[in-house]
Amino acid sequence: MRVLETKRELQAWSDAERRAGRRVALVPTMGALHRGHAALVGIARARAERVVVSIFVNPTQFNDRRDFEGYPRTVETDLAACRAAGVDVVFAPNAAEMYPEGAATWVDVHGLSEPLCGANRPGHFRGVTTVVTKLFLAARPDVAVFGEKDWQQLAVIRRMTTDLGFGIEIVGGETVRESDGLALSSRNVRLGPQARKQALCIVESLERAERMVADGEADAERILEAVRATLARAGQARIDYAELRDPASLETVSGRIEGPVLLAIALQFEPDPDGRGSAVRLIDNRVLGRRPRADA
Amino acid sequence: MRVLETKRELQAWSDAERRAGRRVALVPTMGALHRGHAALVGIARARAERVVVSIFVNPTQFNDRRDFEGYPRTVETDLAACRAAGVDVVFAPNAAEMYPEGAATWVDVHGLSEPLCGANRPGHFRGVTTVVTKLFLAARPDVAVFGEKDWQQLAVIRRMTTDLGFGIEIVGGETVRESDGLALSSRNVRLGPQARKQALCIVESLERAERMVADGEADAERILEAVRATLARAGQARIDYAELRDPASLETVSGRIEGPVLLAIALQFEPDPDGRGSAVRLIDNRVLGRRPRADA
Repeated sequence: MRVLETKRELQAWSDAERRAGRRVALVPTMGALHRGHAALVGIARARAERVVVSIFVNPTQFNDRRDFEGYPRTVETDLAACRAAGVDVVFAPNAAEMYPEGAATWVDVHGLSEPLCGANRPGHFRGVTTVVTKLFLAARPDVAVFGEKDWQQLAVIRRMTTDLGFGIEIVGGETVRESDGLALSSRNVRLGPQARKQALCIVESLERAERMVADGEADAERILEAVRATLARAGQARIDYAELRDPASLETVSGRIEGPVLLAIALQFEPDPDGRGSAVRLIDNRVLGRRPRADA
Repeated sequence: MRVLETKRELQAWSDAERRAGRRVALVPTMGALHRGHAALVGIARARAERVVVSIFVNPTQFNDRRDFEGYPRTVETDLAACRAAGVDVVFAPNAAEMYPEGAATWVDVHGLSEPLCGANRPGHFRGVTTVVTKLFLAARPDVAVFGEKDWQQLAVIRRMTTDLGFGIEIVGGETVRESDGLALSSRNVRLGPQARKQALCIVESLERAERMVADGEADAERILEAVRATLARAGQARIDYAELRDPASLETVSGRIEGPVLLAIALQFEPDPDGRGSAVRLIDNRVLGRRPRADA
């Protein structure tokens, strides 16, 4: 496994691979790798002969400085995990490599990036789309894999990839969960023990909504009321949003729901009353009323 | 010479060329080709084995609908000119190919795109940087050539190329002029006969400023006064701007000038009093106090 730190080296490597007729897949990450990332690497491996994992804690997508500073950084463990997963290249640039002196160029996706996390985290998606553009141009992949936990991010990146014409296939990887259902996230380790327990309300609310739809409930407001009631059990958390949206356009769904609908949730947790843990924002989602995947 | 209309075809062609070890150069144009474009093709030809000319009148970079609608479109002549110049591929997409349905992604360069034409033409540079990003991703060139008449555009594109990490060499081509000194522009044909004569005030003011600097004048305000006096002779024209700027950063230069300084001018012409010609905006520039080019 090679560890590259400059865009130029990565471009040269990728060009040589593709000249040799090998497909290249990219899995962009901010490190602190967990089994969710490993699953994305597995998807990448199945679609390309070469897999690049980028590890870069991108400062411009953090709207909250404490979140950026507290974001887990576990480089050595990450490299070992990549090696074990059969990754070919880890791209680990520093901030100056991704944001050259005087950098002033931004990539924006209007519309899709505005609701949900876009409304709660000003500038977040601009940071994401700008850095992903740079990663795409550095790795020049045939395929790029992103987790479905960040559903809106995936939708925004699909839109950007089509609009700018990258010619890269974007693949979503199903969310991987702890045995108790909590979606894997690099931020989970920062929850205090009590918040960690309360965080289960998220997956409980997703499952409750799924059961309601399976049982024939089609009223958006009744579903959201039940979701909010379930989330409210986490006394430590503030609901950033709990919304029903079209899975593709992210437009609000209200009234009677028809066809698959995205339930997207973001909760902001505070440290435990005894001071353990940090302020942590968690997101999760589920497409309600979707037929089981053929490959599931 | 091949004429391609889709990004996918152009990408496939470019990939095959580069796999075969041939360098690809791109000359982005809006058609209505003149000797200035031919000179850019010559520069491209000297730097790459394959030359792509794109012809696309990009709607998003026109802030003025009449300017967009009136922009000269001379496709057949353009294709003949490209053939004569030894161009390998003309990329002539339609608007839907460059702006897919629902397109919502924009590339912005802050700072450099804000003064001069940026202040006079809201949204212009966003349109330019967005379409050039798409053209870069479609043609995947090693080199791209832009005219120095659009000096600010060249600076903005250099910044964008560095910031996003395209790995493309950006080359500027010296402005080509009519025998009387008027900078070649696709818009020149739209000037009425009287406006065409008055337009010479632009190159006269550039030359007057150059002579002042050569004679030892170093006061920015005195140079600009002389420039404005020369421009004022064109009674039909409104000065959009006449400014001294740092050639690289485009920051305003005032007081005593030291080293090379960009004199950038934009004039807005009206139709001739007898109704001939159209409203036309012309720009031109000169770097004052620059040593003669080694290759000039």
